[in-house]
Amino acid sequence: MSRLFMFEKPLGMRDTLPELYEKKYRVRMHLAETFKLWGYQFIETPTLEYYETVGTASAIHDAQLFKLLDKEGHTLVLRPEMTTPIARVAASKLLQEDLPVRLAYSANVFRAQQREGGRPAEFEQIGIECINEETISCDGEVIALLISSLKKAGLDQFQVSIGHVGFAQELFVQILGTNGRASVLRKFLYEKNYVGYREHVQSLNLSSIDKQRLLKLLQLRGGEEVLQYAADIIENGQGKKAISELQELWEVIKDYGAQDHVKFDFSIVSHMSYYSGILYEVYAGNVGFPIGNGGRYSLIEKFGKNASATGFAVRLDMLLEALGSNQLENDTHCIFFSQERRSEAFQLAGKMREQGQKAVLQDITGVNNLDAFTKKFAETTFLIGGRSNE
Amino acid sequence: MSRLFMFEKPLGMRDTLPELYEKKYRVRMHLAETFKLWGYQFIETPTLEYYETVGTASAIHDAQLFKLLDKEGHTLVLRPEMTTPIARVAASKLLQEDLPVRLAYSANVFRAQQREGGRPAEFEQIGIECINEETISCDGEVIALLISSLKKAGLDQFQVSIGHVGFAQELFVQILGTNGRASVLRKFLYEKNYVGYREHVQSLNLSSIDKQRLLKLLQLRGGEEVLQYAADIIENGQGKKAISELQELWEVIKDYGAQDHVKFDFSIVSHMSYYSGILYEVYAGNVGFPIGNGGRYSLIEKFGKNASATGFAVRLDMLLEALGSNQLENDTHCIFFSQERRSEAFQLAGKMREQGQKAVLQDITGVNNLDAFTKKFAETTFLIGGRSNE
Repeated sequence: MSRLFMFEKPLGMRDTLPELYEKKYRVRMHLAETFKLWGYQFIETPTLEYYETVGTASAIHDAQLFKLLDKEGHTLVLRPEMTTPIARVAASKLLQEDLPVRLAYSANVFRAQQREGGRPAEFEQIGIECINEETISCDGEVIALLISSLKKAGLDQFQVSIGHVGFAQELFVQILGTNGRASVLRKFLYEKNYVGYREHVQSLNLSSIDKQRLLKLLQLRGGEEVLQYAADIIENGQGKKAISELQELWEVIKDYGAQDHVKFDFSIVSHMSYYSGILYEVYAGNVGFPIGNGGRYSLIEKFGKNASATGFAVRLDMLLEALGSNQLENDTHCIFFSQERRSEAFQLAGKMREQGQKAVLQDITGVNNLDAFTKKFAETTFLIGGRSNE
Repeated sequence: MSRLFMFEKPLGMRDTLPELYEKKYRVRMHLAETFKLWGYQFIETPTLEYYETVGTASAIHDAQLFKLLDKEGHTLVLRPEMTTPIARVAASKLLQEDLPVRLAYSANVFRAQQREGGRPAEFEQIGIECINEETISCDGEVIALLISSLKKAGLDQFQVSIGHVGFAQELFVQILGTNGRASVLRKFLYEKNYVGYREHVQSLNLSSIDKQRLLKLLQLRGGEEVLQYAADIIENGQGKKAISELQELWEVIKDYGAQDHVKFDFSIVSHMSYYSGILYEVYAGNVGFPIGNGGRYSLIEKFGKNASATGFAVRLDMLLEALGSNQLENDTHCIFFSQERRSEAFQLAGKMREQGQKAVLQDITGVNNLDAFTKKFAETTFLIGGRSNE
């Protein structure tokens, strides 16, 4: 091993040291316990999947997949997200009875990065999927659970921005005629390049009324009132259906008492090609990216089952960033001992641990720099030499 | 996606469904909470590491490594164990002050398998490392923690078999002269092929006294008394040193009150080339493989720091097998509702969840087979239609 290379990690790979680990642990626990109380059951899927199954069904760009070959020449991928593996498990094992299935997960996912200092190539997603349940009540349940779990994790300032895939899609096709033309505008939206969107709309050979309708889409953001504004610019039945779904969703969310954290935003579209209805993103504090996102999707169909589903994923690293950096309290006691009083030290430590007190036992001969080591602990006890030293 | 291939997973890869997930979760929690009470701090390292650093330093066979190339042409590996990544982190970030460092981990590791139906290619290890601490007290602490955490997880019938790398090694070199010849015998031992060991010893051109000494090694199993038997067959200073370390360890373990779960076994050697002293394996009930193992090692030196360490890893899947298969109780309530009583249903669910009761909310229009769905829950409540239906 060359000395220069010795401590290096692959591009985008990170170590999580104790302080951050403990913070992640606690936040994950709050989310997971909330998911369980709402009746969601956790599952785990393999880190490696076949490219031909999960890799191609996933909507993550091919260039972002970590690929390798197995001994038989099949291409494997490190899972780039959890929705597709869960769709595989649900379709193969859990949907035989044609009942709603509520699942949860907490897992690292992998997306290859192009340059150093950028985004992480491995990060943890924690989320849920409600599968084979098509009611708007279910969309509302999932959004209410998202809000409830984030609050449980200690997040106060956040907003779930809700849109509908069907609305923009219908507006675009209605005005532009073809899906190909529509996809250009859609791309501006999911890149959140609103300047580019406006410029492109102005450059199109359209009536000024139609241009206005396309530009108005960007203003359809806010409370319940924007549902009416949206209805004003759409003619098509599918677009109206999207609005009526959002109206119904709003009533469900109000019954949950969760409306304070919800806004509508009709400009939200997804790069995930399998989304099929209501979809949303969560924004918090000063974090520049969504800390979570979700929506209704038809992915299960790719695995041979006709089942709609809805779910969300929270990025644990982004959520931690949103929660800010309060220092954890050092709550560990250290008992130093010499051989003569070893047994006494072990008994003391045992008692402390029984009472939930973290206690390190340290043979005094095992530490070179006692002063520096002592500073690592909240409190210390020395059981050294004869009894008189106590 | 071809239909036949659709549900397949790569060789040795498994899904963990809710029942098993919850069992793993609880056992992991018991171990982790015990580690923390003893002052061990959890860290996480990346799933992918450079082959040149962690891949080559690890003692896992090259053929068992999952390898892939990154964009720059470097070979990456999926971590095959956690001791080597932790050695990297410790050497690069945590040993600046030259103090003892107590770390813990809970992580999936990866070992490519050759055929279907065999061992898992991805499994979870949970363990600890006490780094830069050379005392026998520390070896004893780690073994006592292993025993304490397994008991906390509910395991009653288990045994930690303790050996010492130095003893067999010195005996072999003393009798056979070269390390090459010694390695043949060592291989029989770590494969636990005792028949092969005996046959090989008999085939060697040695005095009958030396053959007896080599065969006696296999009988050095039992309580404190075998330390004396071991002293009878060794002449060398290093071998005697191994025995005196084990004698001191025994005293430490007795002070912990953990001796009932400990036996000595001088035939234990490791395939991990970096072990350097006391080492051990944990056996439980009817499980054919060790559910955990550990020992003292000098791996940190490969990362440029002169620091001895000791630690253990428990295989969570093996531990679960040892714990047996008690059914978890179904403790989830389901509240079915219709639109008229939605708000009431939400309030009831909220109250239940506040009291720690798991509660699913189910829109009655979202389920096709109500009878089958009802059977999934411990209890159900129907809030349907007008008040009179209650």
